[in-house]
Amino acid sequence: MVYFLLSKIFQPIVSRPWKSISAVEMISKSQRLMLDNGLIEYVGGKGLFHYLPVGLRALEKLCIIIRHEMDLLGAGRMALSNLCERSVWEQTGRWEEVSAELLRLKDRKGKEYCLCPTHEESVTSLISRFSPITSSRLPLLLYQITLKYRDEPNPRFGLARAREFFMKDMYSFDLDTKSAMKTYDAVNKAYFSIFQTLGIKVHRVEAAVGSIGGNLSHEFHCESQYGEDYILLCEKCQKKFTEEVLVNSTTCPVCNEPFQKVRSLELAHTFFLGEKYSEALGATVTCNPESPIPLQMGCFGIGISRLLAAIVDYFSRDEEIRWPLCVAPYKVCVIPPKNGSREYPATPMALHLAEQLSSLANFNEEIVYDDRTHQTVGARLRDAKRRGYPYVIVANKTVFNKSSPKFELHCTATDEVLEVTHAELFQRI
Amino acid sequence: MVYFLLSKIFQPIVSRPWKSISAVEMISKSQRLMLDNGLIEYVGGKGLFHYLPVGLRALEKLCIIIRHEMDLLGAGRMALSNLCERSVWEQTGRWEEVSAELLRLKDRKGKEYCLCPTHEESVTSLISRFSPITSSRLPLLLYQITLKYRDEPNPRFGLARAREFFMKDMYSFDLDTKSAMKTYDAVNKAYFSIFQTLGIKVHRVEAAVGSIGGNLSHEFHCESQYGEDYILLCEKCQKKFTEEVLVNSTTCPVCNEPFQKVRSLELAHTFFLGEKYSEALGATVTCNPESPIPLQMGCFGIGISRLLAAIVDYFSRDEEIRWPLCVAPYKVCVIPPKNGSREYPATPMALHLAEQLSSLANFNEEIVYDDRTHQTVGARLRDAKRRGYPYVIVANKTVFNKSSPKFELHCTATDEVLEVTHAELFQRI
Repeated sequence: MVYFLLSKIFQPIVSRPWKSISAVEMISKSQRLMLDNGLIEYVGGKGLFHYLPVGLRALEKLCIIIRHEMDLLGAGRMALSNLCERSVWEQTGRWEEVSAELLRLKDRKGKEYCLCPTHEESVTSLISRFSPITSSRLPLLLYQITLKYRDEPNPRFGLARAREFFMKDMYSFDLDTKSAMKTYDAVNKAYFSIFQTLGIKVHRVEAAVGSIGGNLSHEFHCESQYGEDYILLCEKCQKKFTEEVLVNSTTCPVCNEPFQKVRSLELAHTFFLGEKYSEALGATVTCNPESPIPLQMGCFGIGISRLLAAIVDYFSRDEEIRWPLCVAPYKVCVIPPKNGSREYPATPMALHLAEQLSSLANFNEEIVYDDRTHQTVGARLRDAKRRGYPYVIVANKTVFNKSSPKFELHCTATDEVLEVTHAELFQRI
Repeated sequence: MVYFLLSKIFQPIVSRPWKSISAVEMISKSQRLMLDNGLIEYVGGKGLFHYLPVGLRALEKLCIIIRHEMDLLGAGRMALSNLCERSVWEQTGRWEEVSAELLRLKDRKGKEYCLCPTHEESVTSLISRFSPITSSRLPLLLYQITLKYRDEPNPRFGLARAREFFMKDMYSFDLDTKSAMKTYDAVNKAYFSIFQTLGIKVHRVEAAVGSIGGNLSHEFHCESQYGEDYILLCEKCQKKFTEEVLVNSTTCPVCNEPFQKVRSLELAHTFFLGEKYSEALGATVTCNPESPIPLQMGCFGIGISRLLAAIVDYFSRDEEIRWPLCVAPYKVCVIPPKNGSREYPATPMALHLAEQLSSLANFNEEIVYDDRTHQTVGARLRDAKRRGYPYVIVANKTVFNKSSPKFELHCTATDEVLEVTHAELFQRI
């Protein structure tokens, strides 16, 4: 039952002198579009951003899609502290290993913490408090959507490589390798399902485990000119690898075919960790109470704010944002006539349409009514296209056609413009 | 359409030796109940907590209630960075002023930041980027629900005084004092509405502005033996003050009546800030483009994780959590018969009831089915009361009453136990 007046939404549109900036900073299309269209704003310093209301709406819709898939896996949602004590990171050897990228601080008593770039230590030491876990409780999957911190040497491309970023991270605990691999496969399927919902084509590639460690790892990449990686695709046997795994290889290790090398952006990462963390921190399971054994762990991350940037890069025009319908901050913009214009008497019809649409379950809180009626329809239509509403509806002179009043419907994803009756409109969107 | 199996919910029940702990740490009822019942867990070190799934569910329900009221005010939701640069806090003088409670850190380039205890500096410098704001855009209200950091010298009472905590903070921007006061009053009303929804009796008291600054301030307190403040209530003229405002006074400054002095916990705080931050950081408004003037600001906070603790303290028994229905992590627990018991054949009826209830819009994702059927009904009923489901439904021998099958309905808030038919059950809850 709620629709929004555009003048009341805080979405400051600005023009930055990108040409002069891009000489010193690596800029992506999503960064330009999200900053100029009031979705995010610099905090002061590269790689740190505030999320403004319209950007946060898109981010939250993305979270809902991801949460849905995690729920289907039976995962529990939690929120771990952003801080972790130095001593816990020392137990796994990562205080030194991840060193340069850790943001560290001391409390008033001199105790040292890091701002977590990832939460393996935190969740494993949490589980160790309740260990040994009984095996009937397994598999245990826990996830969170929280801010993470990584002191990147070279933050760039806006949200794609930031120093503070939203991440969905999940941790799995299993009795043995076999069940851990079953969990691993189930989560990988769920990840494919997420990208399918978003309409983004991804490659799942074999990857290096890096500082996270473990025995097995896959990354999900989308092809992108703003990517920072290259992936190697074998067209013959369909194997896919990160460049890191096969340094200097030009042919597939399986079928010897030359690789196709594609620039790409990593969107998600899955690891089978084995006992690396559970052994160091004492997270155990018991079938036999006398001999608890370390849990078999997995970890699974999606860089949510990076994914948001990737979506904008993937779907948008150079100067106009485009969204998949499921992530668009608002689904529809209704543009009423200009004050004092010939079409002005159609205003009540536009208002009524906005009300009617928002009373549908699908469109509640999804409709924006552009009440800046001192501006021409043309100017507001250009603005609406720039902001990227999937549907823009204009009440113009055709609504006066007595035999068959019609609205102008702009489907921005396809660039179609249709003149539709009221009934057709409700069928179409 | 979704109900949960209790065995799949990660809610570890533990018993801590509170008697020995409470000698060194100040413990509240909510702290004991939330830690022992697997809602939160210590991170390691006082005043830092992880939120486990059941605790996070309650927190999130609380957020929904608060967001609803903020939306009614027309406020936009955003997410500001948790980090703010030293230089910005120096411009308002607070880098030195708040000194001891600030958690500070340096990035790899040596730039200094604080982990924000509050976001006046961040939001004001954000608005200054888009200044001067046109006056037609006012009042502008922006809020967020994020983690905050305060390096308390003496964290205690669990979530009530933590070092990392969830807060709803809102900032308002107005053209002049008169409109700022109108905004101030509207937000104060919204706060009363939130506490009314929760069923918590609060006192709005005149308060000191402290390090936030400004000209006018009110706090919302609930009476609590775990409170850290005292409030002064005049029964004659109904004026209410924090003790801090009227140091050493025993009588009301308005009517000279002796005060009633009550121990209390602060749950929310509202400030009329005036130009303190907008002037220092250049957040301005223009009616006349040639002479922008500083915005009149307000700020409005609710300590959400503290409020969660206050709710548990307010409603719970000594050994059993109680929730208001709107915040309860799950509304209903269905307890089927024990395996192999005489009542065991009633199992399908219990399962069917859980399914039926969860198919109602009100109860989707609100039903827990206690599938630990190796335990007696009595043991699981005690456990359910301890965890504090508002309604517990037991399928026991009365479901076999052919003429009128009945379930046992426990209304935990009132301690009523009713034998109800299927139809009566659906009317009752």
